[in-house]
This record gives sequence, C-alpha cells and structure tokens, in this order.
Amino acid sequence: MLEELKQKVYLANMQLPKYGLVTFTWGNVSEIDRARGLFAIKPSGIAYEELRPEDMVIVDLDGNVVEGKYRPSSDTATHAELYKAFSKIGGVVHTHSPWATSWAQAGRDIPCYGTTHADYIFGAVPCVRNLTKEELKDYEANTGKLIADHFKGKDAEAVPCVLCRNHGPFTWGKDGMDAVHNAVVLEEVAKMASRCEMINPNVSPAPQELQDKHYYRKHGSNAYYGQKTAQ
Amino acid sequence: MLEELKQKVYLANMQLPKYGLVTFTWGNVSEIDRARGLFAIKPSGIAYEELRPEDMVIVDLDGNVVEGKYRPSSDTATHAELYKAFSKIGGVVHTHSPWATSWAQAGRDIPCYGTTHADYIFGAVPCVRNLTKEELKDYEANTGKLIADHFKGKDAEAVPCVLCRNHGPFTWGKDGMDAVHNAVVLEEVAKMASRCEMINPNVSPAPQELQDKHYYRKHGSNAYYGQKTAQ
Amino acid sequence: MLEELKQKVYLANMQLPKYGLVTFTWGNVSEIDRARGLFAIKPSGIAYEELRPEDMVIVDLDGNVVEGKYRPSSDTATHAELYKAFSKIGGVVHTHSPWATSWAQAGRDIPCYGTTHADYIFGAVPCVRNLTKEELKDYEANTGKLIADHFKGKDAEAVPCVLCRNHGPFTWGKDGMDAVHNAVVLEEVAKMASRCEMINPNVSPAPQELQDKHYYRKHGSNAYYGQKTAQ
Amino acid sequence: MLEELKQKVYLANMQLPKYGLVTFTWGNVSEIDRARGLFAIKPSGIAYEELRPEDMVIVDLDGNVVEGKYRPSSDTATHAELYKAFSKIGGVVHTHSPWATSWAQAGRDIPCYGTTHADYIFGAVPCVRNLTKEELKDYEANTGKLIADHFKGKDAEAVPCVLCRNHGPFTWGKDGMDAVHNAVVLEEVAKMASRCEMINPNVSPAPQELQDKHYYRKHGSNAYYGQKTAQ
Repeated sequence: MLEELKQKVYLANMQLPKYGLVTFTWGNVSEIDRARGLFAIKPSGIAYEELRPEDMVIVDLDGNVVEGKYRPSSDTATHAELYKAFSKIGGVVHTHSPWATSWAQAGRDIPCYGTTHADYIFGAVPCVRNLTKEELKDYEANTGKLIADHFKGKDAEAVPCVLCRNHGPFTWGKDGMDAVHNAVVLEEVAKMASRCEMINPNVSPAPQELQDKHYYRKHGSNAYYGQKTAQ
Repeated sequence: MLEELKQKVYLANMQLPKYGLVTFTWGNVSEIDRARGLFAIKPSGIAYEELRPEDMVIVDLDGNVVEGKYRPSSDTATHAELYKAFSKIGGVVHTHSPWATSWAQAGRDIPCYGTTHADYIFGAVPCVRNLTKEELKDYEANTGKLIADHFKGKDAEAVPCVLCRNHGPFTWGKDGMDAVHNAVVLEEVAKMASRCEMINPNVSPAPQELQDKHYYRKHGSNAYYGQKTAQ
Repeated sequence: MLEELKQKVYLANMQLPKYGLVTFTWGNVSEIDRARGLFAIKPSGIAYEELRPEDMVIVDLDGNVVEGKYRPSSDTATHAELYKAFSKIGGVVHTHSPWATSWAQAGRDIPCYGTTHADYIFGAVPCVRNLTKEELKDYEANTGKLIADHFKGKDAEAVPCVLCRNHGPFTWGKDGMDAVHNAVVLEEVAKMASRCEMINPNVSPAPQELQDKHYYRKHGSNAYYGQKTAQ
Repeated sequence: MLEELKQKVYLANMQLPKYGLVTFTWGNVSEIDRARGLFAIKPSGIAYEELRPEDMVIVDLDGNVVEGKYRPSSDTATHAELYKAFSKIGGVVHTHSPWATSWAQAGRDIPCYGTTHADYIFGAVPCVRNLTKEELKDYEANTGKLIADHFKGKDAEAVPCVLCRNHGPFTWGKDGMDAVHNAVVLEEVAKMASRCEMINPNVSPAPQELQDKHYYRKHGSNAYYGQKTAQ
C-alpha cells in the first residue's frame, strides 16, 4: 500500500515541472495515508529528471523518517503541521512558483478579482506574517503552525492555499494531485491579479455575489460544474 | 452530419490548449448547425488530453441536451443566447485566457492602439457590466442576454469579442475555428495594449483613419489581404 | 537562380514562427536579387504550417508580380520602397512581434539602454509618425517612403530597424536571414527596454562611449567579435 | 585531461539555451584547471546548434590562446580577471539573460526580497558602475578588474553574481555547471524582484534573520538541505 502512495506522490511531484511551477528542486509534494498516520514526500534536493517513485520518503507526523534511503524535503515539518491542523486534507504542495512567490515577497494578500479565483478559492489568498527570530529556531515546524493559526476558525478547504511572507506559497487538497492542481490555480490567479492591477490601479475585488455564484457552481451540494452527478 | 459537426467542434476545442488559451478545463468552443437549430459544445469539466470527438454534446437553442452522454459546458446557456441574438455567427468560444481575463478583471474596455487590433476588431473591445444579484439567479443565460443587449444596434461581426467584467472573454466567428482565431487575436491584442500603456501611460488610441484602413484591408468588398480573390 | 532565392526566402520566413515573432500570418520576409531588380516575398495570408518554397512570389521594384500563383504579401509595396531607398540592403522583414509592436503602439523611440542594443543598433530605434489621411490612400508604398524619408542622410545599415506608429516594426539586413536576425534582436531589445523602465522609471540611456565600444566590437574594420578574421 | 575540461565546458555552455538564458550567441561559459592555470571557454560567435566539445578554446590567465582553432569569446579577458581575483571559483558565466540584463540596464542592485534569493545569494546582487572612457580602452579586462575591486574584502562565493551597468550579468561557481546554476537562479531572482516591486512599490527587503536562516540551510557546516550528509 505504501508503494502505491509513493507512486502517487511521485506522479504528483512530476506535475510541478510539467506546469512550470519549479526551477531545479524548488518544490515538493506530499500525500498522507490517514489510516496509518504516515505521509510520503519528495526527497530533499534530488533533481526532477532523476526522481523515481522508490525515492519518495515515508515520514510520520512527527517528521521521523519511517522508510527511505534519502533525507526527506527540508520542508517536511511544515507538511506535517498542516496535516495535523487540517484533518480533511490529503496532500500538500510547496513551490517557489514565480507569480505566487512575487506576491509573497510583496507581502500582500491576493484579492479576488474574478471568477477564475472564485471558482477555487473563497475570498482573498492570505499572506501570513514573517516568523519572529525566536520562531525561526524551529523554522519549518513554526511555518506550519503559523499557517494553522491563521486558519483557526476558518475553512481551510475553501481557501486551499497560503503565501508565506518573503518566502512562497503552500497549497493543499484532497490528495497530492489535487494540491498540485491548486498550486497551478494559485499561480494563474497571482499572475492575473498582478496584471489586472497594472491595467487598472484602482480596481476593486469582484462583487461578493459573483464570487459566491462561482464558488458554489463548483462546490457543495448545489454544484453543477463538471460531470459529478451526470452519467 | 452531426458527426461532422462534433468532429469540427472537437478540433476547434483542441486549438485552445495549442494556443495557450486554457489551463485545465477553463474554456469551451461550440459551433451551430443553423438549419437544424442545434449546436455542439464541449462537455463540462473533461480534460483536453482525454477529450474525443464523440464526447461533444448536442444541444438545442433552449439549452436542452439532444444527444451525448455527458453534461454540456456549464456556459452552454450563454452560447445559446449568443446564437439567438447574433444570427450570422456560427461559432462561440469562452476562455479564461490570462491577458483578456486580466482586462475583464480590471473592468476596462480595450482601446484600439494599433493595426493588429484594427485588422480584426472595429473599435474598442467592450467590457460589459456585472450582473445584478437578481440576474445572477439565471447566471449563464443572463450573461448571454447582457452581451446581446450591449450589441443591440451594433455590428457584432465587426467586433467579434467581449469581456465580461470580473470574469473573462467570449469571442465568436463564422464557425468554431474562426471563433478560436478571434480568441487568439483578442489575447494578443490584450497583451500588447497592456504593455503599450506601461511603455506610455499617456497613449491614445490609433487614429480612426488608420483603424479604418486596416479593417477594410481585410473586410468588405474592397479587401485585398490574403488570397480571397486571387488564383 | 530564382529558385534558390525562393528557397532562401522560404527558410527565412520559417524563422519567424521559430523565434516566436509571429501569430498566424502576421509577418513576412523578402530578399532581393539586386542584379535582376527582383525580390521574392511571402504570399499574403498563407499559414506558415502550409508554406512551401515554391509559394514565394517574385516581384519587381514597382511591386508587379513577375512569377508566382499567389498574391504577394499586402506589405509588398513597403518592401519595394525600402529596397529602392536603401541600396545596400538585401532583405526586409515585417512582423507584429509583441514587444516591438507595443512600443510602436506607444509611439515612442526605443532608447539605447545597454550593450545588447548597442551591439546591433547605433542609437535609438526610431518610431516614425502616422501617415496623413492623404498618404493613407497609397498606404503600403507611403509607409516605405516615410521610413526612407526618416533615414535620409542617416546610415540605415547602422540602425537596421524602425517602428511604424500604431502599427509595428520593419527590419532589414544584408539578406532575408540577416533581416530576421535583426527582428529577433529588436524584440529582445524592446522587451528589456520596457522592463528596464519598469525597474527604474528614471533610467537614462547607456553612456555614448559604451554604445560606441560595443557597436564597433561587432562592426567596421576594428571589429573583433566572432570568427571573421580568425582561422 | 583538457579534453575532459572541454567536454565539461561544452556541456555547461549547452545549458544556457536549455534554460532560456541566451538568444543567438549572447553568452559564454568557462571552467578553469587551477593546477595548470588554464581555462576552457566557448569560441566567439559560434551558434549553439553547431557547437561541439572540440570547439572549446584553451586560454591561459593572460588571455593567450594555448589550444583551439577558433578565437575565444570576446569576454575572455573578463573571465581571466575573475579567476585571478577569486581564487576559489572554478567556473564563470556571462549572459544577456533578459531579466538580469534589465536590472543591469536600470543600474540597480537587486534587493533580497525573499528566500529564493537568500538560498543562494547573501544580500543584494550588486550592480557595478560604468567604466570610464579611459577604462573602456581595455574594456574586457577592466570589466573584470572592476568586479574584482567591488568584491575586495567581501566574500565572492557568498554572492556569486554581479550586474555590469548597462551591460548584463556575470555569475560564477565551483565549476562551469555551478556557475550556470547561479545564472539561472539570478534570472529567476531578477524576475521575481521586478514583479514584486510592481505588486508592492513600497516593498522592503526580507528580514535579515530570514535571509540568514535560508542561506545557512544550504551553506556552511550546519547546512541541512539536500543529501550532502545523508545516506
């Protein structure tokens, strides 16, 4: 069963270069097996061209390596914190994708300017603050805890992404592939929001009723996008 | 005959990823058989890599599925309204292509800054208003009606495209492939208009006589671009 | 011999899509046989994917078709005027390449901000004015005459390119392939000049002595770039 | 042994077009054999598509050609100066990569806005001044000396790149391939810094403690990124 998980995580990782979200090794995908409390994640610093399914590293929720000859991604502790905080998610992605990272560097939330955004993300994409010097001592775990804090009392499935200030994005989803899907969405949304502000510096977010309309076309019991209930 | 229509609509849809106009399933093409009052359209949410000609859905002008095992595009009612309002068009395209969508999000008409634009589009590309809360209840049909209203008394063939505010572009043409052609043109025009304003924030539209010259090089009885009358 | 010319012009035309300078048929390359006073040029409106060497059209300097089953490019008269005005050039290119066209739409000369520009173009890239209503009656020929006027008393080989306001660029060179080379250079230069102004809105052109140094590294009797005198 | 060096330098040069860092021949990579005091470098003006390992030119630290039928890169004297000044580096790269060159043209240091930058470059990327008219007489060597001067008393391995005003970037590393790696990093960093300032014109550099944290995740005895100490 973990071989299957490794295979899935391998395939999800290989989507990152396919969609232009990574340069070199600047990204990683994980997926969790909730029953066992273990997740598979990309090994640290291994080039995508050389990556194989058997290279994935199995880690527990304390970040201990359970299986694998390589060190796991240096961001493993962040993934673990997100799995602990968001009980319904099954996959996590971190990249330095250029547009989302530019917003993270700019230290701004991404406003919802249109339906591309609203179709996937309910409201603005939040940009969380820098860690304090004290928090930096346990950098990766505290990054995850900071994200978890931000979402306390909020619906992390309705906003499946975050920007870490001066760093870059994390996204999540029902499995690794879905988290990658959200990473692609975020990059497109970040690109169009930036261009949109260039075209109209006084632009306002999309009307809330339009955001609602699009989000609920794709989510919830009244969704009618796609083939979910057809056939 | 409808098999031929499905094949044409399939091929036109496959141009969208080829020209970089879609991410995932964010786009759809339809083409109408005017004699039968039926059109073929992409099924909703099916990935382009998996799409086959036989997956196209046949719909009537009230949006009822006449043939096909899949649900049609969620934007089907918009396509139907456009076919009803613009009697001479044969194809409709909707995408979230990044530059056109950025203008739609910015809520601005695209001014005609040059001959690339004037060769295909007579005057500015209009950006129509948001729907009211009341209109949102029948979102897709009212989107089409709003576009039709905008063009009342205007020549929809001379301006084969529109931006829906906070949403994205629709384009049309004499068939599905021609509508895709106009979608590519619109994306190039939107990109260059944005860059042009960045290079010269005080830029004005191209002189009307130059716009006329280029439009009528390609359109009408005195057109002399291409091979139409040669050979 | 004209077969050879057609083949050369065909190959030069095929570089335009390779370098991303054209969408659809928005570009054309010609090359002249000075001894015969004839030039070969792309036919009007034929897609690059379908273009064959034998499709090139042979035209004289008055723009009359001498050989070829197709109509020549609608810009043929502009090419002819440039060949008549600039006696040392052997090839001409017109495109709507996005960055150069954005500058043309903005109606601005491209200042020389660095050595990439100075290596090929001595001083700013000029943007010539719009034609008057009267001049538009013989649009393509007058476009060429306007460019020729601009370069009267100037060295058109040292500045192998021009922007036509609200339209796009023309470039030239010792043959068709060299003119394409300059079209690629112009697009890169236009892109970097635009970004450079975004990064520093108060930027000044490169010092004249640096422009001189780079231009004469590649041009004239003291040039030492490349393998011209080696081997 | 020099055959092996030529092969390595050839492969490193071929990474430049792969990563989109060069147009035509606008770039070159060299690598030094410190024991012999010789380095291999790309020949001047030879197209990448035609380049072969045996075309690499062997040069001594005074810029004299020791072996090779071609002229070495016109930037050879700059490479030589960098090897003389920075005793621990093994490879040097020069390109006109568009984003880094745009910053060089803008005449600005690139501030460290985030961890992508901090992972590889400690502090801002410096932009060195123009050469004086006097210095331009020995242009390439003085370019190298100016860079060396800038780094006097600084750690050139911790900032493996520089922008030459109105010209473009040089990068270096432990060998040619590593210097190319840094050239790719610089281009990404330059792109994101520019976009970041567009998104937030009042942006500040990343907190120093975050820069430190990321730099030392990858460098020095406490580094824990990648597989260096694992397995």
